[in-house]
Amino acid sequence: MLSSLPIVQAPMAGAQDTELCIAVCKAGGLGSLPCAMLSPADARAEIAAVRAQTDAPFNVNFFTHRPPAVDAQREALWLAQLGAYYAEAGIDPAAIGAPPTRAPFDDAMCVMIEEMRPAVVSFHFGLPDEALVARVRATGAKILSTATTVAEARWLAARGVDGVVAQGREAGGHRGMFLSEDIEAQPGLFALLPQIVDAVDIPVIAAGGIADGRGVAAALALGAVAAQIGTAFLFTPQARISPAHRAALAGARDDGTRLTNLYTGRPARGIETRFMREMGPMNAKAPEFPRATLASAPLRAAFEAKGRDDFSPLWAGEAAVLGRSEDAGATTLRLWREAQARLRALAAASG
Amino acid sequence: MLSSLPIVQAPMAGAQDTELCIAVCKAGGLGSLPCAMLSPADARAEIAAVRAQTDAPFNVNFFTHRPPAVDAQREALWLAQLGAYYAEAGIDPAAIGAPPTRAPFDDAMCVMIEEMRPAVVSFHFGLPDEALVARVRATGAKILSTATTVAEARWLAARGVDGVVAQGREAGGHRGMFLSEDIEAQPGLFALLPQIVDAVDIPVIAAGGIADGRGVAAALALGAVAAQIGTAFLFTPQARISPAHRAALAGARDDGTRLTNLYTGRPARGIETRFMREMGPMNAKAPEFPRATLASAPLRAAFEAKGRDDFSPLWAGEAAVLGRSEDAGATTLRLWREAQARLRALAAASG
Repeated sequence: MLSSLPIVQAPMAGAQDTELCIAVCKAGGLGSLPCAMLSPADARAEIAAVRAQTDAPFNVNFFTHRPPAVDAQREALWLAQLGAYYAEAGIDPAAIGAPPTRAPFDDAMCVMIEEMRPAVVSFHFGLPDEALVARVRATGAKILSTATTVAEARWLAARGVDGVVAQGREAGGHRGMFLSEDIEAQPGLFALLPQIVDAVDIPVIAAGGIADGRGVAAALALGAVAAQIGTAFLFTPQARISPAHRAALAGARDDGTRLTNLYTGRPARGIETRFMREMGPMNAKAPEFPRATLASAPLRAAFEAKGRDDFSPLWAGEAAVLGRSEDAGATTLRLWREAQARLRALAAASG
Repeated sequence: MLSSLPIVQAPMAGAQDTELCIAVCKAGGLGSLPCAMLSPADARAEIAAVRAQTDAPFNVNFFTHRPPAVDAQREALWLAQLGAYYAEAGIDPAAIGAPPTRAPFDDAMCVMIEEMRPAVVSFHFGLPDEALVARVRATGAKILSTATTVAEARWLAARGVDGVVAQGREAGGHRGMFLSEDIEAQPGLFALLPQIVDAVDIPVIAAGGIADGRGVAAALALGAVAAQIGTAFLFTPQARISPAHRAALAGARDDGTRLTNLYTGRPARGIETRFMREMGPMNAKAPEFPRATLASAPLRAAFEAKGRDDFSPLWAGEAAVLGRSEDAGATTLRLWREAQARLRALAAASG
């Protein structure tokens, strides 16, 4: 790993800016900058902003989905199905039309990477076209991507990535799955991690359900070189989340999250909301990623304006309960100290 | 824990007899005897058979479901829905009528426990009535039960159990869930285990997705006092499983299992079969546990007689790939040796 501590801050598009990345880097972890919702110009500015604060290496993250062809009929049907919600919110569905803000990694972003040369570039939902991967590799960046199954890890390793993020089913936010759409076949981290470690010859970073030092120690025990942590960092002042999201995290339960495609069109884990309860968390009629966002974003905005989280994507992993309100740098250091103490105590006790 | 090694052999009704329990006990683990499919007389005989071979403590396991009222219409509809399968198998559905063989813990079994006084008595699907629990406790037995959520762990702890088995979503076989029926709200072990450890003041045993020493070490890191292992023991010669089941385990994949209620009426994890693919692994029309077994058992038998596993319950957890064909005693010892070595190496490396 490139950071001094085996702690990777999960890139969380829509929930952070440079501050979180900087705080984690300064504490010795690998900070991340999510760029899926940024323009190349904004990404360039954020990378520069991190560099102004720290010399540490950090990770710049992109989505690599293929934007779907617009299916006007499906989208119209979906808007009709949500009609009562728009009425409740006082929204005219005919006025909805802003394009989704999540764009895949493309030539313009690659030019930005070639210019800015971050130490680590990571992808979610597979990899971009080979030519783009080759250009990123030529900058000297270490390339990471997410695997939710052994098959995905092998696919990524065969394409020359430098490391794999093994994302267990517990993880909050978007599942990185790209070879399968079956969420019932997504293994938990306990089972997935050692199988990926055995299947590939490159470093494996554990993700999903890790929110304290016990989890970091367990991830190392299962063969990971580092633990990637997302939800625990949402409890820090460096997270940029709504009051609704912060309140929901404070009341999180082990059994309170669901995988849902309602918000963006792709399965992502979040705290259960009214939207999920009433429409079913996985709904086959939701438009494809990222176009379902067109329908959900106005509802989110209208209800949040009234202080309600009925339609908010409250992204969280299954271990949110373990999160603590403290500075992100302190979280980074504490997680590693706890993990070290735990491993020493267990080694001493195990005889 | 009552055994010298922190390894518990998961009770696996229908997949083992006394031999597996004896081998694990002799190696220093806590062996288990599943009694859910035994009469009190057979349970008595099995306990005596184990005692003839070892002085070690062991665990005697029972189911505690409430047998459902027979819903003749629902069962007839289900048989009709499976009609083409019966025709394919050459079975007359009108001739199907054997009662299911899984009985809950009752007075007669409790009398057997009072007579035989095993060191550990464990329950699946909650606990029997308070009066029965009190009688078991009065024998001096340590009482365990399974929790699949923090709420279930708290419920069990409030009722005085001596330890909780935290069963992650990865686990093979029947989910012990009893306060919820929503399989989408069942956390993975990585997230569940530390939350249960924090929530209750009694020892917690980790279960689900643990099949080698790395998993045992990780379970201890997350706060468990021991790891309960099922699937890895199905690879031993002491397991009593069909050739179809053994062959399926040899070809297991991390993403090859599903939770299904088709076989018994309750969600259980097994390797995907034709039955699951064609009927959907979770089917709301399947009769309640354990009565779905009436419909599935004849199909299983008919197809297995032809050497096919189309309708076989191929119970397995998500870490089946990590299993090894070796003696159950050797597996017990190896898992603990691997875990010790792993913890020592990590403590040394963590600085």
